[in-house]
Amino acid sequence: MNKEVKKAEVIMIGAGPSALAAAVYTTRENIETILIEKGVIGGLAAITDLVDNYPGFSKGITGMELADELQAQAERFGAKIELDIVESIVKEGDNIRVKGSGADYLAKAVLIATGSDYKKIGVPGEEEFYGRGVHYCATCDGAFYRDKHIVVVGGGNSAAQEALFLTRFASKIDILIRGEAWKASEILVEEIEANEKITTHFNTTTDEIVGENSRANKVIGTDKIKNEKVEFPTDAVFVFVGLVPNSQFLRGSPIELDEIGFIKSNSDLMTTMDGVFVSGDVRSGATMQIASAVGEGATSALKMREYLEEKARADRISKK
Amino acid sequence: MNKEVKKAEVIMIGAGPSALAAAVYTTRENIETILIEKGVIGGLAAITDLVDNYPGFSKGITGMELADELQAQAERFGAKIELDIVESIVKEGDNIRVKGSGADYLAKAVLIATGSDYKKIGVPGEEEFYGRGVHYCATCDGAFYRDKHIVVVGGGNSAAQEALFLTRFASKIDILIRGEAWKASEILVEEIEANEKITTHFNTTTDEIVGENSRANKVIGTDKIKNEKVEFPTDAVFVFVGLVPNSQFLRGSPIELDEIGFIKSNSDLMTTMDGVFVSGDVRSGATMQIASAVGEGATSALKMREYLEEKARADRISKK
Repeated sequence: MNKEVKKAEVIMIGAGPSALAAAVYTTRENIETILIEKGVIGGLAAITDLVDNYPGFSKGITGMELADELQAQAERFGAKIELDIVESIVKEGDNIRVKGSGADYLAKAVLIATGSDYKKIGVPGEEEFYGRGVHYCATCDGAFYRDKHIVVVGGGNSAAQEALFLTRFASKIDILIRGEAWKASEILVEEIEANEKITTHFNTTTDEIVGENSRANKVIGTDKIKNEKVEFPTDAVFVFVGLVPNSQFLRGSPIELDEIGFIKSNSDLMTTMDGVFVSGDVRSGATMQIASAVGEGATSALKMREYLEEKARADRISKK
Repeated sequence: MNKEVKKAEVIMIGAGPSALAAAVYTTRENIETILIEKGVIGGLAAITDLVDNYPGFSKGITGMELADELQAQAERFGAKIELDIVESIVKEGDNIRVKGSGADYLAKAVLIATGSDYKKIGVPGEEEFYGRGVHYCATCDGAFYRDKHIVVVGGGNSAAQEALFLTRFASKIDILIRGEAWKASEILVEEIEANEKITTHFNTTTDEIVGENSRANKVIGTDKIKNEKVEFPTDAVFVFVGLVPNSQFLRGSPIELDEIGFIKSNSDLMTTMDGVFVSGDVRSGATMQIASAVGEGATSALKMREYLEEKARADRISKK
């Protein structure tokens, strides 16, 4: 069975803020662009309650509204969004073929902007209260909890760093660590121990997040030493157990990833595959911030345009 | 006479989109921040008629409104903006001293986000019709002139590149070059010559831009060979004679600039002076796009926070 092949000048994998910003630029410049999205248009931003720090909205904007605006803006200039799941990327002569489960896509340049997901702990209440007391990004949501009580879940470097950062806002922080010790650098651990706002609970699992009026208000765990249930009434739970870059479909491709799976790039945001660019939260060095992802999207669009122009020039010379 | 010394955790030089975005991040995280602006709050963006490609505003937004929103957002979280002219930056023990003409400023970290200006040709009408038929950025404003007539002023690589780019939109382009030949790469010149939309006029000065109903509609020049006035009725004039990065105050400082005067940075957006960061259009490699400047501002804020945290940690160790 032959799959349909859809052609464009640029294919973008993902339709979150970074790809949508890039598509505003490419399509406004008459560069035909198809975005391929497997989940939610607008990405993680779309499922964020209030985006308080995306520059340009002085009172904040809901994630859904921001995602809608980004989509409308890209579509206004002619961006096409296809729902499909990308399985691999291969060079094909002068083109790049993006193989999807529904169709194949052929382009001169490709942008990977598939983002990252926060690792979940997978307990009851975690999904229900996401954005309403359950958070994964201290920079994004810490400021909503000035003088409040926060529970932090995690025992690695990022949990330690983010817990310390959250002391800028919170009046009291309980850290729940499953293991019997920190897996963080000594200097961070010393700082945690010296901080009066923080209490660390080792050998403590996080079993359930409960709440009322649509907001989380308690974490239920188990003290594994005493083998008894423990409860932590709280205003919020911040989970810091890692990130999962959406780059699984690149395993086996010549596109280089870092040790966690983020995509490496040069200063032009090009990956190690000629003509394939990367922007936003799936890029190695990314900040998990909408503003940065959008900025990189715009930059990547300009770099792709330069790439396409230079390629066209080189083709013209070689045909003489 | 002793100048007043104002202290903050972070000093930002400039209050355009990049610095304002950075200030949203730092101040929202309780990092005390002062911005120093010598001209217009909002920078070049503030004096742009319609910003069509800043992601998040599907119908576009006026430059003034966007600047106001950015300022309100930064001030909402506590950013302070001072009007002053920065004269130099020097290391002072553990701090960085920013010397202004009105006061001095002392901080642990400094962000330079002073932007760039487009070089003007300095003829009557150029300022009057700025944004209303007189433009300096093809990426920003080219799309407003679909199927229109454009005059391009300039004879270097950027004029050649941007004129070619503008053929995506314009139906006819006249390029006015003062000298008797292009100062652009051969391959670009060949492409210009092969393009039927473009007519190049050598030995032609640009003397005046005239208009009516508040819009430019004609360029008056001089054919230096025939020594007679020439007129080019047009819908827009795009001037591409270079950029002037606002980095003059850094001459003589250890902060490295590139050959044009843009500030060099590493992947953390730090300059060659420890603790001094750079973002936006004054950075070497910048795109002259608000979205990119804002994204870099957000990233630089996170990098400065990390820098301050690591510095505080190192201090704590050395004091043991």
